[in-house]
Amino acid sequence: MEQAVLEQTLARVRDALESNDLATATSIIEALRPADQADIFSDLDDNQQASLLPRINPADAADIIEEMYDQDAAEIAVQLPLSVLTRIVNEMEPDEAADLLDDLPPDQAEIILAGLKAGQKVKSLISYPDDTAGGLMTTSFLALQRRWTAEQCIEAIRAWHPEDETIYYLFVTDRLNRLVGVVSLRQLIVAPPKTPVGELMDPDVIYVTVDTDQEDCAELMQRYDLLSLPVVDENRVLLGIITIDDLVDVIQAEASEDIQRLGGAEPLDRAYLDTGILTITRKRIGWLLLLFITATLTGYVMDSFQEELQTAVALAIFIPMLIGTGGNAGSQTTATIIRALAVGDIDWGDALKVWWHEVNVGATLGVVMAAIAFLLALTWVSSFEIALTVAVSIMIILLWATGVGSLLPLVASRIGIDPTVVSGPVMSTLVDATGLFIYFSVARMILKL
Amino acid sequence: MEQAVLEQTLARVRDALESNDLATATSIIEALRPADQADIFSDLDDNQQASLLPRINPADAADIIEEMYDQDAAEIAVQLPLSVLTRIVNEMEPDEAADLLDDLPPDQAEIILAGLKAGQKVKSLISYPDDTAGGLMTTSFLALQRRWTAEQCIEAIRAWHPEDETIYYLFVTDRLNRLVGVVSLRQLIVAPPKTPVGELMDPDVIYVTVDTDQEDCAELMQRYDLLSLPVVDENRVLLGIITIDDLVDVIQAEASEDIQRLGGAEPLDRAYLDTGILTITRKRIGWLLLLFITATLTGYVMDSFQEELQTAVALAIFIPMLIGTGGNAGSQTTATIIRALAVGDIDWGDALKVWWHEVNVGATLGVVMAAIAFLLALTWVSSFEIALTVAVSIMIILLWATGVGSLLPLVASRIGIDPTVVSGPVMSTLVDATGLFIYFSVARMILKL
Repeated sequence: MEQAVLEQTLARVRDALESNDLATATSIIEALRPADQADIFSDLDDNQQASLLPRINPADAADIIEEMYDQDAAEIAVQLPLSVLTRIVNEMEPDEAADLLDDLPPDQAEIILAGLKAGQKVKSLISYPDDTAGGLMTTSFLALQRRWTAEQCIEAIRAWHPEDETIYYLFVTDRLNRLVGVVSLRQLIVAPPKTPVGELMDPDVIYVTVDTDQEDCAELMQRYDLLSLPVVDENRVLLGIITIDDLVDVIQAEASEDIQRLGGAEPLDRAYLDTGILTITRKRIGWLLLLFITATLTGYVMDSFQEELQTAVALAIFIPMLIGTGGNAGSQTTATIIRALAVGDIDWGDALKVWWHEVNVGATLGVVMAAIAFLLALTWVSSFEIALTVAVSIMIILLWATGVGSLLPLVASRIGIDPTVVSGPVMSTLVDATGLFIYFSVARMILKL
Repeated sequence: MEQAVLEQTLARVRDALESNDLATATSIIEALRPADQADIFSDLDDNQQASLLPRINPADAADIIEEMYDQDAAEIAVQLPLSVLTRIVNEMEPDEAADLLDDLPPDQAEIILAGLKAGQKVKSLISYPDDTAGGLMTTSFLALQRRWTAEQCIEAIRAWHPEDETIYYLFVTDRLNRLVGVVSLRQLIVAPPKTPVGELMDPDVIYVTVDTDQEDCAELMQRYDLLSLPVVDENRVLLGIITIDDLVDVIQAEASEDIQRLGGAEPLDRAYLDTGILTITRKRIGWLLLLFITATLTGYVMDSFQEELQTAVALAIFIPMLIGTGGNAGSQTTATIIRALAVGDIDWGDALKVWWHEVNVGATLGVVMAAIAFLLALTWVSSFEIALTVAVSIMIILLWATGVGSLLPLVASRIGIDPTVVSGPVMSTLVDATGLFIYFSVARMILKL
C-alpha cells in the first residue's frame, strides 16, 4: 500500500475512534493486509489500541501482534483480558505464540498456555532461545510417511490446513518420525498416483538441529536457495520447519545489528521512535565512554610530545588530517572485510592472503596520498621538513591502518566476537592514538627535535 | 556442506586435475549442489577452470556460472569456445543469461543470442537495468487463463517443466495476457476439479512494473511475505516474475553496499580476494582524499586559534577526546537513523520528531559525559577553567552531533541521495571541524583568552 493511502486510512480509523465508532474502525482495519494492519495499529495511542484489539477478529488480531516488535506486542498483550488474549494467541503460529508468551509474566503465560489448543507444542517451543533454529521453527507442519503413495500424500494435503508457505516442500519421515527425505508438491502431482513417496523423494535433505544459530540457518537457506529448512533433534526426529519469510526477517535484523554496531551503538530492540530516550542513551553511552577513555591515550601521546609541539607549532595543524585519514582508511578496510566474512567470501584460513592484499592497497593509497599531502603541506607552511614529515607519516599510517583493519575483524571472528564490535569507532580511536604516535616519532626524526 | 568437507573435496579435484584426470574432476563436481560447485570452481586457477568447464554437463555448468559474481562469470565465459558457451547459456535462467550476455563483447553476445532457444526472451531482458524489476525477473513462468478449470490448470502444470520455485504461486491472466489474479497450487488441488480458476483466484494481487527499483521489490516481498512477485508493463500485461531466492540475494547485496558505504568505501562488485589492488584502491581513494581535504578545515580552525593554543597548551591534550566523541556520537546517530529509514520505521514526515528525540538523547549523554570529562580534566591538568571548558564543550558538541547526525540522513534520503553516503567518515570529518571550533570558542569565553 502506498504511503499516502496508508496515511488516509490511518486518518479514517482515527476519525472513527474519535467519534467512538469502534465498529467502523474495526472493519477498516480488518479489510487490510497484515503488514498494513500492523502499521496503522502501531500509529494509534495505547488506549486506542487496547480498546480496539478485543473487537478485531482473533485471526486478524493474531496477524497484527505477529507483525509487531516483540516488546510492543508484550506491552499491548498484558493490557488485554486473559480470555481475549487466549483467543488471539490460539490463532498465532506456534513459534510466534511461544515468543510472545516468553515475554509475558510467567503466571499469565501459564494460564494462557492452559487454554491453548496447541498448548503442548507452544510450551515445548518456549524453551528454545529466540535466535536459534528451535526458536525460529514452526511446529505446525505436515510430515509424509515414507510408505505412503503420491495419491495418499495429496489426500493428506487436502485434509490439512496450514499457512500456505509451509506446504510447498514436504518432508518425509520413517516410522520413528526421523527425517528421511524431501519432496515437492509439484513432484507429487506429476507422479503416477500409486508411486510410493519413498521413491519420489530426494533422500539428500539439508537440515539443522534445534540449537543451530539463526545466522547459520539463514546462510544455509540462502546458499542452497531453500524455501524451507527442517529442524531435527539429536536422533534426527523432525521437530519443525523454518520458512523463508522468517529467514528474510532474520537477514534484515542481522544487517540492522551489524550497521548499528558499526556505528558504535548497541542495536535497538524495537522501532526507533518507540524506544525511550533513556534506553537509547544506555545503548550508546557504554561505547562513547569507553572510546572517550581510550582517546585519553591520544591525549597522553600529545602530552608527551608537548616539547616538540611548542618548538614546531605548525605540526599541530596537520594532526586532524593525519589521524582522520588513518581512522578513515581503517574503517574502509574493516567494512570491506566484515562484509566479505559475512557473505562467506573469506574466512580465517585466508587471513595471511587478506592481510597481504590490504597492505598492498595501503601502500598504493599511501603513495598517492603522501604525494598530495606533501604538496598541500608545502604550500601551507612553506617548510620542506614539515611537508616531508607529513608525507612520510601518512604513508606509514595508511600501511598500519589497512594492516590492522584487515586483521582485527578476522581475529575477532576467530575468537568468537562479533567483528562489527571491533570496527567503526573502535577502529578509529585505536588508529587515532597510534597515528599520532607515528606522526610525532617521524617528526622527531626528520625535524631532529 | 561443512567448510572442512568442502576443502577436502577441493583437494580431491585439484589432485585429479594435476594428474590430468579431467573425468574424475568432472564427476566430483557434478555430484555437488550448485552453490558448492561454484565454491570449489572459483578456487581453481583460471586455466583449470577453462579446461574443466567445457567437460561439465551444460546444466551444471549453467548453475556454476549463475552462482558466480557477474564479472567473474564474464571473464570465464569469454575464454570458452562459442559453441560450448551457447550450450551452457541455453541452460541458464533467462534473467541470468541476459545479465551474462550484457557483460560480454556485443558481437559475441549477438552470435550466442542467435543460437539460443529462448533468444527472443533473453534479448528483451537485456534492455532492462540489472537493479530493476525487469532485470531481476524471470520470463520463464506459466500463466493460467482465467477461464480454465482447476483440472485444466493442474494438467498445464504437469505439462510444464520450470524450476521448482516458480510454480508455487501461479498468476492468472485474461485473453490479453493482463494480470488479473493469483492462485496457489494448493488451492488448485484442494478445489473441485471443474471450478474455474477465475473463482479460486485472489484478484487483489500485488505487482510491480518493469522499471521498479530492486530495493522497492525487496521491501514489498518482505512486507507482505510473498514467495513471488509478478512484473507487468504499463498495460498490466504479465512480463515475468521475481522469485524469493533472487530477493534474498538483493537484500544481502544492499546490506553489503550499505555497510561498505558506511565504512567510507565504494562497494566492490565481486569477491574480495578476486578484486585487484588497483580496483580496491580506486574504490577508496575518492572518499579518503575528499575527507583529507575536508580535514584541512579542521586544520584551519586549529591554525586560527594558534594564539590560544600557545597561551594554554594544555588545551591541546583534550582535542582528540573532544572531536573523537563528537564524531562517535554522530556515527551512532546516523547508523540508527539509516537503519530505521531502511526498515521503514521512520520517514521524512517524522523529521522533526526524530530530531527532537535525538536532541534529548544528546542532552542526556551530554550531562553524563560532561560530568566525567570535568573530573578527568581536573585531575589531569589541575585547572578549574580548563576542566569547565572541556565539560561545557562536550555538552554542546554532543547536542550538535546528535542533531546533525539525525537530520543529515533524513535530508539525504529526501533529496534522493543514499543516506549511507553522508554517514560514517563524512559525518566524523564534519563533526571534527565543527567540534574543534566549538571547543576553542568556549575556551575563549571561559579562559578569556
